[in-house]
Amino acid sequence: MGALHDGHLSLIRHALQENNEVFVSIFVNPTQFAVHEDLDAYPRTWEEDMRKLQQVQEEHAASTGPNKDSVIRGVFAPTVKVMYPTLPPTSDIAGDGSFVTITPLGSQLEGASRPIFFRGVATVCMKLFNIIQPNRVYFGQKDIQQCVVIKRMVKDFHIPTEVRVIPTTRESDGLAMSSRNVYLGERRRKDAVVLSKALFAARDLYNSGELLGKHIRQAAYDIFSEEALAKRKDGKLGGSGRIEIDYIALSDPDDMRMIKDFQKVDPGRGAILSAAIIVWPVDSPKGDDELDQRSVRLIDNVILEPLKKSFQ
Amino acid sequence: MGALHDGHLSLIRHALQENNEVFVSIFVNPTQFAVHEDLDAYPRTWEEDMRKLQQVQEEHAASTGPNKDSVIRGVFAPTVKVMYPTLPPTSDIAGDGSFVTITPLGSQLEGASRPIFFRGVATVCMKLFNIIQPNRVYFGQKDIQQCVVIKRMVKDFHIPTEVRVIPTTRESDGLAMSSRNVYLGERRRKDAVVLSKALFAARDLYNSGELLGKHIRQAAYDIFSEEALAKRKDGKLGGSGRIEIDYIALSDPDDMRMIKDFQKVDPGRGAILSAAIIVWPVDSPKGDDELDQRSVRLIDNVILEPLKKSFQ
Repeated sequence: MGALHDGHLSLIRHALQENNEVFVSIFVNPTQFAVHEDLDAYPRTWEEDMRKLQQVQEEHAASTGPNKDSVIRGVFAPTVKVMYPTLPPTSDIAGDGSFVTITPLGSQLEGASRPIFFRGVATVCMKLFNIIQPNRVYFGQKDIQQCVVIKRMVKDFHIPTEVRVIPTTRESDGLAMSSRNVYLGERRRKDAVVLSKALFAARDLYNSGELLGKHIRQAAYDIFSEEALAKRKDGKLGGSGRIEIDYIALSDPDDMRMIKDFQKVDPGRGAILSAAIIVWPVDSPKGDDELDQRSVRLIDNVILEPLKKSFQ
Repeated sequence: MGALHDGHLSLIRHALQENNEVFVSIFVNPTQFAVHEDLDAYPRTWEEDMRKLQQVQEEHAASTGPNKDSVIRGVFAPTVKVMYPTLPPTSDIAGDGSFVTITPLGSQLEGASRPIFFRGVATVCMKLFNIIQPNRVYFGQKDIQQCVVIKRMVKDFHIPTEVRVIPTTRESDGLAMSSRNVYLGERRRKDAVVLSKALFAARDLYNSGELLGKHIRQAAYDIFSEEALAKRKDGKLGGSGRIEIDYIALSDPDDMRMIKDFQKVDPGRGAILSAAIIVWPVDSPKGDDELDQRSVRLIDNVILEPLKKSFQ
């Protein structure tokens, strides 16, 4: 969808290393935005995006890595009318059109609060795959449910492509890269690190041998509580925006079926621990950049890899 | 779906003439049968189907037509598990799975009485197209709404294939070929010809310059009334099964939007006149072949081609 950051560029770097020709698609897809979500406000940064792609290509050509002759052959940036040639794209779950639906996968977690989201994602990806006919497609692990939905779509519809999931690119403090991070502003940006910190803590606990769903998720919740407590001691409570936990979920890696609190992670399969938070506007704005703040919803996840035999 | 008749063979003959290699798919697709419809009773005639394909291939090789070296390269007859690899196929409109939906096209006419039908058709065709990756796909005009749905799917999802619609193959008296005709038995078979006769009469009226929806459809209804009347005079009333008209519909050729009674056919676009009837069991069975008859639903259609300028 454009607004390229290092996370996107990482996908493109991987694609260049593994293929001879790379196509980049940039399309802000209307059918995955709900009516109340602000499609028009989504950042569009075409000039800067092209500069970044140029740079990635030059770095790749100058590198000593594999496939250094491979190139970004094209950027596919279609109009809405090209992608939705007959009926206008709808944001209504009951709206008419030609759609791919993947359920129950697409109705859980991110799909629970955004019922049209994965219908829009699956639909637009099916179209992109048919137009470009890629040998491999690259998705970022940060949108883990999207990765699982696309993998399922490729399997169920026998789409002749390979889905590559590239690990999440993070800022130095751990925050997952996202086009939405720019909306945070300085103070909320610092606080948002709690999300990755919580997930890492829970992963550490799992890696030490803890398998019970309740305990693993609690380790993540504890970090949020500690952070809030630390702020209170510093007298900072209310200084930044309130952080609301939307969900912290432990799921099966293949179908994202929930692993409940009283269930254990199968150490032979591992799991996905994913979370979404809402960072509310700061309570007392200071300076212009904190005026007119809006709440920002952030997602992140870690993969709990299958454990070595010694823990099983 | 197998149970090959001359209508299917006509598709294959056209495909052989227009391509070098032809693949025939034979798959009785569970997701397009409703729960109350009898999936298991659908005729399966594998040995006979193969003999017919062999014969078509031999006739083609011996012909003097175009592309006489082309061959039926394969018959693709997958298991249900291959086509639905993750979740079991559902016949429930609210059931889970990976589906393609094309609305409102798939919810009208045939889709009105069979809400899951075109979801099942579009879904299985998307899979077949991805597996075979054909340059051209062949569908029979008899299932006209299916043709329009598939054309729409190909357009909206940018599927790299060409949809070829082959005219309906008919028995010498006009009845459209269908796997279901075998269920009729001798007497009902004779009466069923009223369906094509009615459509032809309406088409004749249109070709003579009549454009009003009401008048065109009435011409078809009149044939049903005349036939019933003729039977009464012959004292044959009740001798065969009652014929119930499900619908006689006049539709736009591209999106099948209904052309209403007070509307006129745009002579520059033409229209589709389609109908469905239900032939009920004979009132007084004679002989074994009329025992345990079930009602048979038949569909047919004619295309009202755009008219020459003189009529516009």
